[in-house]
Amino acid sequence: MKKLSIIKIGGKVLDDAVQLAQLLEDFAGLIGERILVHGGGKAATQMAGRLGIETQMVEGRRITDASMLEVAIMVYGGLMNKQIVAKLQARNIPAIGLTGADLDIIRAHKRIVETINYGYVGDIDSVNTSELTALLDRGIAPVFAPLTHDGNGQLLNTNADTIAASVARAASENREVHLIYCFEKAGVLLDPEDDASVIAQLTPDLYATYKTSGIIAAGMIPKLDNAFAALRAGVHRVYICQATALSKMGTPAFIGTEILL
Amino acid sequence: MKKLSIIKIGGKVLDDAVQLAQLLEDFAGLIGERILVHGGGKAATQMAGRLGIETQMVEGRRITDASMLEVAIMVYGGLMNKQIVAKLQARNIPAIGLTGADLDIIRAHKRIVETINYGYVGDIDSVNTSELTALLDRGIAPVFAPLTHDGNGQLLNTNADTIAASVARAASENREVHLIYCFEKAGVLLDPEDDASVIAQLTPDLYATYKTSGIIAAGMIPKLDNAFAALRAGVHRVYICQATALSKMGTPAFIGTEILL
Repeated sequence: MKKLSIIKIGGKVLDDAVQLAQLLEDFAGLIGERILVHGGGKAATQMAGRLGIETQMVEGRRITDASMLEVAIMVYGGLMNKQIVAKLQARNIPAIGLTGADLDIIRAHKRIVETINYGYVGDIDSVNTSELTALLDRGIAPVFAPLTHDGNGQLLNTNADTIAASVARAASENREVHLIYCFEKAGVLLDPEDDASVIAQLTPDLYATYKTSGIIAAGMIPKLDNAFAALRAGVHRVYICQATALSKMGTPAFIGTEILL
Repeated sequence: MKKLSIIKIGGKVLDDAVQLAQLLEDFAGLIGERILVHGGGKAATQMAGRLGIETQMVEGRRITDASMLEVAIMVYGGLMNKQIVAKLQARNIPAIGLTGADLDIIRAHKRIVETINYGYVGDIDSVNTSELTALLDRGIAPVFAPLTHDGNGQLLNTNADTIAASVARAASENREVHLIYCFEKAGVLLDPEDDASVIAQLTPDLYATYKTSGIIAAGMIPKLDNAFAALRAGVHRVYICQATALSKMGTPAFIGTEILL
């Protein structure tokens, strides 16, 4: 099977032009097929601020109302996505920018209201594997913005980690998928203040132990649950590391956490 | 040869949700392959206003400075393009939103400064016919935003009429292309105040006559020059009409101007 690397980036890498340029350089240097999934960084919040749109919070959770969705479509689906595509083209990577609506590639439904109405947030129903495969077969590198659609004309905001995991699971049907979550820290850490304390390999048993002891806490849990679920669904390898580790992937110099079953 | 309809829309159709919905319905009803090219409408100017960005004018011409380009990428490449794509998907049209950077499909250079520096405005160098054909062959309907790129990572603002004409010329290599410019008026008019005065067929001789007599003036000339150039380059048919005429195309009820050589 062909190898496919799916790289998810977010946060500071997107907000810093120098870090982003290095990441795109490293992405261009990857061997085999590749997909980039980007989150939002601070740009959407900043744009909302400039437009006088207040971030709606309910019980500490951010709500995507109609105004905030428009900002997300503009900033994630427009500015950020297309600038990344143009910069990859400059590195001779045949990139294409996608939301879930393009090619009906990721369909979702508006999150069902239980206790909190999250607004225009989409939970993924399906990934169109045949369209995804057709792009990869032609050597194209898809670049996903964190947006999906419901099939009835409504775009929805969807977490980029979840998009990366869902695309990875779908692509595993006919690819050896390596899913790499790039974030601020060097990996899953024993001591959140110490980048040297990276857990090199995290198994379900270790994960359970670290959760019980409180070493792995709130922010990491959804990411790791996504990661384990991806492996169980057939994704070949899952890593969590800094964007700067990407160029060392597969070498002894690589620093990061590999998630293992 | 397969028939391909290329529909260019702009102005009020984009600004009015009801008109846009009808246009997308008519577009979905077209027979054969299809491409949609959209301009900006007022949304980008409005967004620039909300962001406190002033439209730069030099000698009566609008300049795309860095801030205005960002707005164009957000509004044309993001909000407008992706909402159209989502709405076409809801009508079972397998649409994909594109700028020129995606798939390196339209490459341009920053307009050379002669008397006026237009800023980040792109003049088209090439259309990637093989990528375009590959999409069409898979039954996909490309939706183009009025943006191109220079191959060095820079996105550029490019007139939507020109994008439509350039894509039409490129596609004529292997398609019977019908290029349809939709705009506010019912066609090219003998009396600009009277929609009943549509010139049904416009030849180069008539065009020259009407230009000399002042019947065809400023605003229409670049559009018509584009139209004649497209025909000379192999485009099969070119029409100028209202968006509402699209559903009557090819029937006796059609009202609009056909450009003929």
